[in-house]
Amino acid sequence: MSTAEEIAKAAKAAFEDSQLVQAEERVNALKYICDALEANKTAILAANTEDLKAAQVEVDAGRMSESLLKRLDLNKGDKWDSMLQGVLDVANLPDPTGIVSYAKELDDGLELYRVSCPIGVLLVIFEARPEVVVNIAALAIKSGNAPILKGGKESNATTQLLAQAIASGLAQSSLPSTYVQTIQTRAEVSSLLSLDKYIDLVIPRGSNSLVRSIQNNTRIPVMGHADGLCSVYLDESADLEKAVRVVVDSKTDYPSACNSTETLLVHESLVSTIWPKVAQALLAANVRLLCDGPTLSSIHSISPPPQNISLASPASPEAYTTEHLTLVLAVRAVPSLADAIKHINSHSSHHTDSIVTESQAAASAFVRGVDSAGTFVNASTRFADGFRYGFGTEVGISTGRIHSRGPVGLEGLVIYKYMLRSTGDKGHIVGEFGAGKKQYKHAQIANARLPF
Amino acid sequence: MSTAEEIAKAAKAAFEDSQLVQAEERVNALKYICDALEANKTAILAANTEDLKAAQVEVDAGRMSESLLKRLDLNKGDKWDSMLQGVLDVANLPDPTGIVSYAKELDDGLELYRVSCPIGVLLVIFEARPEVVVNIAALAIKSGNAPILKGGKESNATTQLLAQAIASGLAQSSLPSTYVQTIQTRAEVSSLLSLDKYIDLVIPRGSNSLVRSIQNNTRIPVMGHADGLCSVYLDESADLEKAVRVVVDSKTDYPSACNSTETLLVHESLVSTIWPKVAQALLAANVRLLCDGPTLSSIHSISPPPQNISLASPASPEAYTTEHLTLVLAVRAVPSLADAIKHINSHSSHHTDSIVTESQAAASAFVRGVDSAGTFVNASTRFADGFRYGFGTEVGISTGRIHSRGPVGLEGLVIYKYMLRSTGDKGHIVGEFGAGKKQYKHAQIANARLPF
Repeated sequence: MSTAEEIAKAAKAAFEDSQLVQAEERVNALKYICDALEANKTAILAANTEDLKAAQVEVDAGRMSESLLKRLDLNKGDKWDSMLQGVLDVANLPDPTGIVSYAKELDDGLELYRVSCPIGVLLVIFEARPEVVVNIAALAIKSGNAPILKGGKESNATTQLLAQAIASGLAQSSLPSTYVQTIQTRAEVSSLLSLDKYIDLVIPRGSNSLVRSIQNNTRIPVMGHADGLCSVYLDESADLEKAVRVVVDSKTDYPSACNSTETLLVHESLVSTIWPKVAQALLAANVRLLCDGPTLSSIHSISPPPQNISLASPASPEAYTTEHLTLVLAVRAVPSLADAIKHINSHSSHHTDSIVTESQAAASAFVRGVDSAGTFVNASTRFADGFRYGFGTEVGISTGRIHSRGPVGLEGLVIYKYMLRSTGDKGHIVGEFGAGKKQYKHAQIANARLPF
Repeated sequence: MSTAEEIAKAAKAAFEDSQLVQAEERVNALKYICDALEANKTAILAANTEDLKAAQVEVDAGRMSESLLKRLDLNKGDKWDSMLQGVLDVANLPDPTGIVSYAKELDDGLELYRVSCPIGVLLVIFEARPEVVVNIAALAIKSGNAPILKGGKESNATTQLLAQAIASGLAQSSLPSTYVQTIQTRAEVSSLLSLDKYIDLVIPRGSNSLVRSIQNNTRIPVMGHADGLCSVYLDESADLEKAVRVVVDSKTDYPSACNSTETLLVHESLVSTIWPKVAQALLAANVRLLCDGPTLSSIHSISPPPQNISLASPASPEAYTTEHLTLVLAVRAVPSLADAIKHINSHSSHHTDSIVTESQAAASAFVRGVDSAGTFVNASTRFADGFRYGFGTEVGISTGRIHSRGPVGLEGLVIYKYMLRSTGDKGHIVGEFGAGKKQYKHAQIANARLPF
């Protein structure tokens, strides 16, 4: 058993060694890993069955939820195949590294290139689903980062065999076999959080409290995948059909997802026109409505009373700051677009918010004024997702505002470095530039390709 | 006197309000600020003279360094004019916000745009030079961020009047006058570091210990501008003239800058060929050489003994982990390029490192294998600088690896948000996509311009 420091050092060494390995070799490694997983499928699924049995005991004793148990299951349906397909999909995505995003000739024969490169060593902490180990390992390998992975303790047996298969796949490639490491305990996480010399980024995927507790205990930058408190605002000029469709989809398509809507704001001019129709559609879909005075009395004046009217009740102030994650929606009337923007900026989690409007001016003010990672017009908040955005895959959804914001694809796992090359006869020195001497050219290099 | 929380809340409110102000108005604000500074020049320079008098007392009592006192002086030379010119230069840079970096049609009439936008509220902590208040305020305003600025206490009188002029300039614009705020005390900084609800990024410009102490005491992301321990490596195939020029410039052009070189690594095959010439040039430039055995004995076998030979002495192990910031250079022979890369990755501060080589293969391995923000070939480490890179100006040099790395220009002060717009007849909902239903198009939108 290695200490946390040994693990972190090994990860840094593996990362540094991997910098001289060609990017194609990372793609090969992913294919070897698929083979190794397939070769060990029986043993891995047997270990998963053991994890499930142990979890069933916890569920029966009331110490674990049924939904957590379901997420542990790697035997179910096409989960295994789609896990492997996911690795191949990642392998086939474009390489996010080696991309030149800035290229200038500073002087004759002095060229500057800003080139995308991996961040380094990632500590990724995530929930129970064992296939996430494979998923995150694939993303890290593809982007050239060396990950240390901590899954949920409920899936330890499965995770250990998955990790062994990953290591044996890596062993066939030119990447170090310690390139991907897994850890099992919270104590190891705590120790690793102090090792900012070796670890470059922590990615916690879980609750707000997990993210905050990690932020409180480390100097290492944290890319948090925390909760989502999303809103829809029905503007004065909202179209009825769009309003109903967008609100119902945003709330009911998958209520436990972070991009589901938790709050509906209604312009007060719509309280007795569009709102009653939206409310009826929501009630018919079994959505509990926590309403402020105007929106509740509007429901109560619908005649005849709508289906499921008992699901509508008064909202407490906390209703507007709660991520319900179930068929519950907080509703509030607002006197203006400006008030809607203010409410969202002070109550939402800056994840994704949508306006339903026919007004270009209102749309423009909303998408600029709402300070969230996603600002949508006439579209469901459920579109906030890396696959839907076209990234091919998703590391998570960042609720932070540094480095990556919103759905994080492979691009979110890279940074850049500056490469400067002198091809001059005598090399290049700063002392030759300045007043009365050489001046910087700063000429754009068109269609720059890395000369190294 | 406002509390830290009031200051932070006011900054967040000012930031949010400013999101609906057009970018051109930020340029106007910078011009109004220039006018206000010019109108208050006499009073500001008088306050600066008071700060200098108080500082002189400290210097005389041995409690402050002469160099710190010099940096306080705003009366000296063209400092005032270049401060104002700097504001106008920033005003004239291209707007870093509103730039579309990803645009896809997800479906007919459903367009996704990734658009650069400000980060939010910045807490910037910096050293004594009072003009930095104006400099940072200009960068923040141009990029749409609301800054809270803490300068050195030695320049408090000057800073307060500069801040008043900035506020009166802002008052003439449509930006809130609380858009730029200044604070005076460390206690205020401590309180602000806990307010991650309002503050989005902390930018400490100073020592490693300042950066680390801030990282230890906040959940807010930190973009550190810390020390630089840069190296030059003379490869086996190094050209003599390039070696001498690059090493001497890297060390002596401005020894107290963070991009000056502190360590020289010499391939062992050069110890009795190129190294003695480089050593002679360094000694002639009054550089103290802290050498390992081979490089020191090589100097001692030069005949006749070089000028200033007494400046060469044995290195302690700490010599290779010290940022000397003066005319001192640690020197070590290494058996291979791989060892040079390993030494740099484990000893340098990942700021900027340079190789002198005639080999394309060695250059390629070095720029990829050295894990630093800048990896240079045949060029002085002193080129690592926002102005030289062509950014027009520089917020600082980030020694972190998240968000911005190396010299940080205006681009380093922005993030992005995703704007999604449905122009479909019925709006867009996720429930209509999936197996047997609509598929995502993910078609690139060529030359995308923001439709809002």
